[in-house]
Amino acid sequence: MKLNRKLRMGMVGGGRGAFIGAVHRMAARLDGEIDLVAGCFSSDPAKSKASGEDFFLDPSRVYASYAEMAKREAALPADQRIDFVSIVTRNNTHYAVAKAFLEAGIHVVCDKPLCFTLAEGRKLQALVKKSGLVFALTHNYTGYPMVKEAREWVRGGRLGRLLKIVVEYPQGYAITALEQQGDGAISNWRMDPSVSGASNCMGDIGTHAHNLARYITGLEIDEICAELSTFIPGRPLDDDGNCLIRFAGGARGILYASQISSGEENNLNIRVFGTKGSLQWFQENPNELIWKKADAPQEVHRRGNNYLSAAAQGAARTPFAHPEGFIEAFANVYRAAATAIADQVAGRKAPKAGYDYPTVDDGVAGLAFIESVVKSSKKGAKWVKFPKMKV
Amino acid sequence: MKLNRKLRMGMVGGGRGAFIGAVHRMAARLDGEIDLVAGCFSSDPAKSKASGEDFFLDPSRVYASYAEMAKREAALPADQRIDFVSIVTRNNTHYAVAKAFLEAGIHVVCDKPLCFTLAEGRKLQALVKKSGLVFALTHNYTGYPMVKEAREWVRGGRLGRLLKIVVEYPQGYAITALEQQGDGAISNWRMDPSVSGASNCMGDIGTHAHNLARYITGLEIDEICAELSTFIPGRPLDDDGNCLIRFAGGARGILYASQISSGEENNLNIRVFGTKGSLQWFQENPNELIWKKADAPQEVHRRGNNYLSAAAQGAARTPFAHPEGFIEAFANVYRAAATAIADQVAGRKAPKAGYDYPTVDDGVAGLAFIESVVKSSKKGAKWVKFPKMKV
Amino acid sequence: MKLNRKLRMGMVGGGRGAFIGAVHRMAARLDGEIDLVAGCFSSDPAKSKASGEDFFLDPSRVYASYAEMAKREAALPADQRIDFVSIVTRNNTHYAVAKAFLEAGIHVVCDKPLCFTLAEGRKLQALVKKSGLVFALTHNYTGYPMVKEAREWVRGGRLGRLLKIVVEYPQGYAITALEQQGDGAISNWRMDPSVSGASNCMGDIGTHAHNLARYITGLEIDEICAELSTFIPGRPLDDDGNCLIRFAGGARGILYASQISSGEENNLNIRVFGTKGSLQWFQENPNELIWKKADAPQEVHRRGNNYLSAAAQGAARTPFAHPEGFIEAFANVYRAAATAIADQVAGRKAPKAGYDYPTVDDGVAGLAFIESVVKSSKKGAKWVKFPKMKV
Amino acid sequence: MKLNRKLRMGMVGGGRGAFIGAVHRMAARLDGEIDLVAGCFSSDPAKSKASGEDFFLDPSRVYASYAEMAKREAALPADQRIDFVSIVTRNNTHYAVAKAFLEAGIHVVCDKPLCFTLAEGRKLQALVKKSGLVFALTHNYTGYPMVKEAREWVRGGRLGRLLKIVVEYPQGYAITALEQQGDGAISNWRMDPSVSGASNCMGDIGTHAHNLARYITGLEIDEICAELSTFIPGRPLDDDGNCLIRFAGGARGILYASQISSGEENNLNIRVFGTKGSLQWFQENPNELIWKKADAPQEVHRRGNNYLSAAAQGAARTPFAHPEGFIEAFANVYRAAATAIADQVAGRKAPKAGYDYPTVDDGVAGLAFIESVVKSSKKGAKWVKFPKMKV
Repeated sequence: MKLNRKLRMGMVGGGRGAFIGAVHRMAARLDGEIDLVAGCFSSDPAKSKASGEDFFLDPSRVYASYAEMAKREAALPADQRIDFVSIVTRNNTHYAVAKAFLEAGIHVVCDKPLCFTLAEGRKLQALVKKSGLVFALTHNYTGYPMVKEAREWVRGGRLGRLLKIVVEYPQGYAITALEQQGDGAISNWRMDPSVSGASNCMGDIGTHAHNLARYITGLEIDEICAELSTFIPGRPLDDDGNCLIRFAGGARGILYASQISSGEENNLNIRVFGTKGSLQWFQENPNELIWKKADAPQEVHRRGNNYLSAAAQGAARTPFAHPEGFIEAFANVYRAAATAIADQVAGRKAPKAGYDYPTVDDGVAGLAFIESVVKSSKKGAKWVKFPKMKV
Repeated sequence: MKLNRKLRMGMVGGGRGAFIGAVHRMAARLDGEIDLVAGCFSSDPAKSKASGEDFFLDPSRVYASYAEMAKREAALPADQRIDFVSIVTRNNTHYAVAKAFLEAGIHVVCDKPLCFTLAEGRKLQALVKKSGLVFALTHNYTGYPMVKEAREWVRGGRLGRLLKIVVEYPQGYAITALEQQGDGAISNWRMDPSVSGASNCMGDIGTHAHNLARYITGLEIDEICAELSTFIPGRPLDDDGNCLIRFAGGARGILYASQISSGEENNLNIRVFGTKGSLQWFQENPNELIWKKADAPQEVHRRGNNYLSAAAQGAARTPFAHPEGFIEAFANVYRAAATAIADQVAGRKAPKAGYDYPTVDDGVAGLAFIESVVKSSKKGAKWVKFPKMKV
Repeated sequence: MKLNRKLRMGMVGGGRGAFIGAVHRMAARLDGEIDLVAGCFSSDPAKSKASGEDFFLDPSRVYASYAEMAKREAALPADQRIDFVSIVTRNNTHYAVAKAFLEAGIHVVCDKPLCFTLAEGRKLQALVKKSGLVFALTHNYTGYPMVKEAREWVRGGRLGRLLKIVVEYPQGYAITALEQQGDGAISNWRMDPSVSGASNCMGDIGTHAHNLARYITGLEIDEICAELSTFIPGRPLDDDGNCLIRFAGGARGILYASQISSGEENNLNIRVFGTKGSLQWFQENPNELIWKKADAPQEVHRRGNNYLSAAAQGAARTPFAHPEGFIEAFANVYRAAATAIADQVAGRKAPKAGYDYPTVDDGVAGLAFIESVVKSSKKGAKWVKFPKMKV
Repeated sequence: MKLNRKLRMGMVGGGRGAFIGAVHRMAARLDGEIDLVAGCFSSDPAKSKASGEDFFLDPSRVYASYAEMAKREAALPADQRIDFVSIVTRNNTHYAVAKAFLEAGIHVVCDKPLCFTLAEGRKLQALVKKSGLVFALTHNYTGYPMVKEAREWVRGGRLGRLLKIVVEYPQGYAITALEQQGDGAISNWRMDPSVSGASNCMGDIGTHAHNLARYITGLEIDEICAELSTFIPGRPLDDDGNCLIRFAGGARGILYASQISSGEENNLNIRVFGTKGSLQWFQENPNELIWKKADAPQEVHRRGNNYLSAAAQGAARTPFAHPEGFIEAFANVYRAAATAIADQVAGRKAPKAGYDYPTVDDGVAGLAFIESVVKSSKKGAKWVKFPKMKV
């Protein structure tokens, strides 16, 4: 950043018991430059109020609805009102909430996926452009230092021409739900199309895999062939999916996301193969980035070392082998967004190189991914053209 | 086995400098129950002769052509002639060589792929059935003890209903060839369609991946969608390929084989996910088999332990953590084939459970795999029906 | 905790550029229940002031000396003054600073080692007892959830009778310093006996290894044989050391700490062997705890799973395979200390099971360790009796 | 080698059911240049005869005693008698058997430890020198290609000046025996001092650890401090031991061997730290050698690659990532010994660089190690001077 004060943050969603809201708060707090000062933590006003007490907030800044919050915060004096809002509600509400705050002139950090449909996403994209405000999407896995290092390798030509990308996101938790709750159980709201959208597994975690590949390689998808499956009978949405990908420029890819891969925890990983060498990164071992090349020893590059790029070094908070994890990576998204917000607050220009946080454009690409894989799968896993992204 | 003598082996191909011929000889020799006594090691008679000297053979048993060898060996007295022949020539000759020895009443061990086309394979299949002789195909990766353990797990229901299979075979050596020899270089005969067949990468190593998945899961492919690539311009055949698979019974799969995955060495691996748990096996770390299950610690099962199945224990030669590798796994194919041959020699019936070596039927399935992926890919990666296997 | 407000924290040391001070602040901040409100961040008043601005503090709460800070904070009204102070200065000042705040009635969190000599440590121990205040020592490695799981295993008898403990703490950074700065360079103040104490390597990281073994096993050392080395000529203190240990009760141990193990980063690890099984934990891969037992598959227990003990589950902030690291472990020490402090603030009794943070007694044991290894080494690596710990 | 025939091997010990005898035969057989033609496989003549039948030997070459065997083989015509004998009996008989064959002019391959006492070993050393015959000791772990690579690194100065060596050999099988057989059970003859010698654990596996460190580093021990333990009550010999080592030249070391490290299988491993970098090798993952260096990515060097030394490449039989294991490493000892024997048979001079197999001198060093650790331990783990080795 630097301001002579902390940024003031509000939150919509994320009340007692919500996993991702707690993560957002820890991520925002970690660097000591952001204070949570207001929120509407639940659509249930009592729960919202109780959550506000948990967070030691002034009761007058805990709201019963996001609409009221946007309106009343905007009306506060400049030295009191929130600088930005974090939206951590369910997918189907992101659009309306974001719209309310953008129209109130308040910057936004929003959980992914961006919103409910690609059409809705494009509207939000237009709103953001028009507003000139910061809109950061928490595709948090791009916050890991060694993911940034991977991107630097690709950008710097270390891999040569890219040939093949394999990205996987296997989880197994939706198998457990089955065993505990009987066949066809819906493990949570993610399986409800009216809340979650056109896809469960691909929308929830497939988009992370897509975003990770896109962030590291800079490649857009040209055509995709996807087969979504619902392995547990009775579920209205997919719990697994496999895709073949043709990237613009000729590289080929495999993308696999699953929530029924029994015993897998959160095993997002990517391998990128080029003419000069290849890289591998595993989210469950995030402090390492592996380099392989024909006729040379394998190399294990590790977070916190001086031999890394400035991008990777700048994203680390501790020295080598003092492991960093999920929260720190998430906090890097917040730090980059906060820097952008502080620059606006201070009336500073954006740096030439821009900021390193996922944007509304990345969110639109994610929605295009969801719509494309659903469309391909419904046709029996035929190849479909990927919508053009104008970034 | 047991006979009161060693089995007598002949070899076609595998002269000086040939990699796979040397592996076959080490594998055959390891248990001290097979003697190499005859051969036609090259289509070049001088090279065949020199190779015979390398192996300390009686010069009268070193032949200038496989046809001569089959004829003259068959004419030798029963206590001298070879019990079986190992065929380690290039793909396009397997059929003719195997036919010659089968018709001479001699058992066959043959390198993979079985032969040149599916049609040829079906003819060979008929010949073998008619002859009643042993025909073993060296899909050697199924010889690893922990692969046998994996099969036992599936058979015994440990994984529950199978949902998903991911099998990969990345190599990178064909990237190197490129760098050393200039664009479009053909790294070896495998890139020559008149020798190698309709596919290079899928024929050479994709078939191993297919065979491994089939051996462990027992599942046949119902439909397949494959995209083969030739990333190095000028090559007449594929150097990479990605497939989506629909298995009979509803499981879904991904199969990926590549020879341009820079820095990968011989990284065949498989993951099988079922409703009750999942397994993982990596050929580069072959003495371990990983078990994962929701809500339970991961388990690493290791070769040579008493807690393993009889199949896995019987396939080991050393105690736990005295690592076994590629040659020992290869030798297990030879040991199983030799047992079958010895039973025939001794006039014993086959055991009820049969023998555990890859057969001509497995070879036909492999050729069906090659033809299917080539067909799918030529259509633009459309789904094609897999030929019916009658086993 | 729970209070209806955040705890107020002060800090001594940890100004601009200090590594461990920044870690303490992140750790304190992570759970949103502690606010930094005052400090004396440097013995240089200008630097202290500038650091206070970095942290957005009220200038009237930024002090030029720790003595002034203790005195003036104690004089503030109860609803303003700090609840506790974090001491992150160099080793030789811990005693005096801690004494000042304890005598002012302020709770203390202190970096390790406890202080300069065992005698000084025993005096501080008496002071703490007399004061009745909370004194937490940041032996942060015991904050990892899987270290807590390991302790639960030992306590619950899972390993049977303990036979052998191997604990290692290899680092390599003091080799680098050599290469960059010429022979005999002192990489930092840790090599200065007047600041660091009787030992560099054993005092800085050997104590962590000792504390980790003690925390997990509950065993005290009976006799120790230590050989300290100074491999880089010209250094006044040890940069490496090896110890054999006889634990009370009959177990045997090896402890090895080093700062010249080239290429090692921060590879603290421990293996504990009992009659019924053994455990292994590596700080560089902290989310896993390995279980080995004769005649059974190895098990990998992973943070965040339901099958773990309450102690391990309670120490986690994210679900399985959303990796946690060094800062989160450090924050667990703060959380436990804050709970104890909040209980005192609220006038609540301590829970029967006590609190799970390292205490002044652990600090005294660490000083006994340092003095014992130095004594043994000076005698030529003879066995010496370990001082009696009365806990 | 090259001869125009296979070498003829005899064996003493190694009858039905003996583990190490079977390994010796597989190792000898692997390269197709050695034939087992004679043996005295057991002190029980019937068992010896039955074993000879298992191996398809001419009954006239299967003997009832080693003395008879030495005498009668020596009396056979030069084109029939064995070229060398492999001794795979228990420790207490090695000396007498080796003496008999050396005096009969027959080369010897002998299992370790060399013999029963250091004094006996020195007599054998003299006998070998006098005879001029080949005497190879199967310290098989030095046969691994990546161990040879490690030695090349040290020799070539890649590590700089050596500072520290940590070598471990944990096994756990002697814990199991306890559980199965009750307290005090002797798991096998290795626990019998009249057969095994002055030490069980250190004699059986500690010597391997010592030999491995000596092979890779070329360093001799100057002083050693050892504490042997017998953790399972009632055992007459040690089942565990820890040593501190002062190497000649100033390096320091830790050596740890154990048979009660529950759940460990055969986890021999070594780490060598120098001023310029360090290496790590684990026998359970033998195809890799790890290189670590300050301020540089870690490197994983893998067997079979062109970037390795000639020594490592020459010791491999398969391409990279076609894993090799214990038997292949063992076979490398046989191959080197066979080359030396063939040179003598053919009347060729030894190559200038010598041969790469463990010798009687290495065996003497191993006996000195055993005697030294026993002596130190009996004195209460005091430092003792290591006997001078004259090589």
